[in-house]
Amino acid sequence: MKSIFFTRGVPPRESIPVNALAECARAVIIDEGIDILQYAPAAGYSPLRELIAQKKNASMDRIILGQGSLQILDILLHCLLHSGDTVAVEQPTYDRVLTLMRRAGLRICPMNLGRDGLDLDNLENKLGNGEQIRLIYTIPDFQNPSGMVMTLEKRKRLIDLASRFNFYIVEDSPYRDLRYEGEAFPSLFDLVPDTTIQLSSFSKLICPGLRVGYAVLPQNLTKTVTHYAEDTYINPSYLNHAIVYRFLQNGLMEDHLVFLKNLYGMRLKSMLSALDKNMPDRCTWTHPQGGFFVGLWLASNDGPALLERAETQGLRLSDGRGFFVHAGENFIRLPFCALNEEEIQEGIKKLAQIIHP
Amino acid sequence: MKSIFFTRGVPPRESIPVNALAECARAVIIDEGIDILQYAPAAGYSPLRELIAQKKNASMDRIILGQGSLQILDILLHCLLHSGDTVAVEQPTYDRVLTLMRRAGLRICPMNLGRDGLDLDNLENKLGNGEQIRLIYTIPDFQNPSGMVMTLEKRKRLIDLASRFNFYIVEDSPYRDLRYEGEAFPSLFDLVPDTTIQLSSFSKLICPGLRVGYAVLPQNLTKTVTHYAEDTYINPSYLNHAIVYRFLQNGLMEDHLVFLKNLYGMRLKSMLSALDKNMPDRCTWTHPQGGFFVGLWLASNDGPALLERAETQGLRLSDGRGFFVHAGENFIRLPFCALNEEEIQEGIKKLAQIIHP
Repeated sequence: MKSIFFTRGVPPRESIPVNALAECARAVIIDEGIDILQYAPAAGYSPLRELIAQKKNASMDRIILGQGSLQILDILLHCLLHSGDTVAVEQPTYDRVLTLMRRAGLRICPMNLGRDGLDLDNLENKLGNGEQIRLIYTIPDFQNPSGMVMTLEKRKRLIDLASRFNFYIVEDSPYRDLRYEGEAFPSLFDLVPDTTIQLSSFSKLICPGLRVGYAVLPQNLTKTVTHYAEDTYINPSYLNHAIVYRFLQNGLMEDHLVFLKNLYGMRLKSMLSALDKNMPDRCTWTHPQGGFFVGLWLASNDGPALLERAETQGLRLSDGRGFFVHAGENFIRLPFCALNEEEIQEGIKKLAQIIHP
Repeated sequence: MKSIFFTRGVPPRESIPVNALAECARAVIIDEGIDILQYAPAAGYSPLRELIAQKKNASMDRIILGQGSLQILDILLHCLLHSGDTVAVEQPTYDRVLTLMRRAGLRICPMNLGRDGLDLDNLENKLGNGEQIRLIYTIPDFQNPSGMVMTLEKRKRLIDLASRFNFYIVEDSPYRDLRYEGEAFPSLFDLVPDTTIQLSSFSKLICPGLRVGYAVLPQNLTKTVTHYAEDTYINPSYLNHAIVYRFLQNGLMEDHLVFLKNLYGMRLKSMLSALDKNMPDRCTWTHPQGGFFVGLWLASNDGPALLERAETQGLRLSDGRGFFVHAGENFIRLPFCALNEEEIQEGIKKLAQIIHP
């Protein structure tokens, strides 16, 4: 029996534009190899920084390219905070970020993300009562792991709180460009471009293995962050940056994005219809219009036991508790992009059976 | 006036095998793109790990590939040590390592590296008096910045001290394969393969920009270090590892190494003859048989003033103090690989003139 993986948020094999990337790689080395294969400044390959800067309507020195965006977040945590400082995250949130924050010795204050979206009342109460929150990490668009989108009203309210209580907002946006229907709200960066720290990457748009992520930084942080990056790894691989740049410059992204949106959009539809058809009434789930994930809440704290039952049925789940500071026993993340429709239908049917035997 | 750079240890433009790397990059993406452009285990691309393991006569799980070896060292410092711990380094040593150690909050105990080589008497005294040294970082072969090679006797004595006083040895070996004449001593890793941590990279053998460095770890550290790497950046770029592997598998390294040794060997000869011809008697310098650097000791602590005088003559030097925990005003690092013979002759002549006007 072949296992069905509802585990990590990886793009499917068929999404990687192998031939185009092979040609881009060859061409950039022939054309610019002597420069991109040498030591170089830590902020990354300038043409790609410039292109991102234009798209963001920001100056190029505010863009730092790294080896994935997670590592840039780790650098940010070290540059902006001290061990013992308090940070806030959505709960559930991206598990790897919780790991980095714990490793940095930070106190993590969870902001509940429930059926009605992000609970900002509780956050405002805490801030009003003197809680010193230094930084908030949020994924407003097609959140990992819930798939949720933050409403415009909440975006504005979060920004207002940041300004009143003086904390950094780190907006992680890897899924924002993967909208399969409906209209986007402005990003937090769009709303306050001077002070929002925005992270993103090409991992979900081209492929993860190139490890090309980036941050748009407030002007006053660029030197510190770039310096820390240089001290850590001298410079990221410009070859990888140049391959991405060539892919964009050759106009390959437009068609590729259409292809991805079609493919993933169909899989999302299939996922939502399978949930409608199979899931018991007492479960609830999100209905995203993009991204990689649907978030499912069970009626009980049965998640950990479910994991084991799933294994016996050839179904692999992630432990919901990994996405929570506390709790998570009633949460399951359902990534849909790397499964075909047959796997999605079969997987959800099996999942429903073990939830409600 | 074109400046002559005696600054950082970068390979020359003409050393980068651009066409071969372009072909390797295209071929690995065509052949293995779907795998190497996906998320993957943090220890790096297995075929290259296996190849290094064979060369080192170690099991593959002891090899971790990173994004340059400096970043692996940073991970090691975090995995093995706590803020406040004491580490020892040669003095002078690689400046970037001092930066990482200071950033990690480590106490740095300098071991003087003078005209007679490494002072192990002083180290043994300190250890005997109860100094708790947790880790020693050393570059035994063609040391950066001095060009020195540690004698076999001192290698054995250092190993004996490590075993008696229970500290880690981190041996950084990026220059070891670049010997232009004479015979190598066994590496520290060769002498005690089970417990030495050896770092190396392809930055000086193929090119720096691919950022392919690695560590050979003692068996009991592999899980901790790999886990920390995964938490930091998920995985390094397998594309870069695969390009290096293909370059090696295609048998291109043998000829390339012959080419590099000829080129750099001539430049080293030119550097040594220029020093002999021009330098005042009271200066002393090393006479390495390989690597990237000659280390020069001035008769006075005139280094910082010299830096400024050099600028006015179109000569760029690194500040010797960067390589020292304390002092360094009498030290100059002279990298020779990226300068042609004319630049070397002219540069050393000018340097001699400003040292002894």
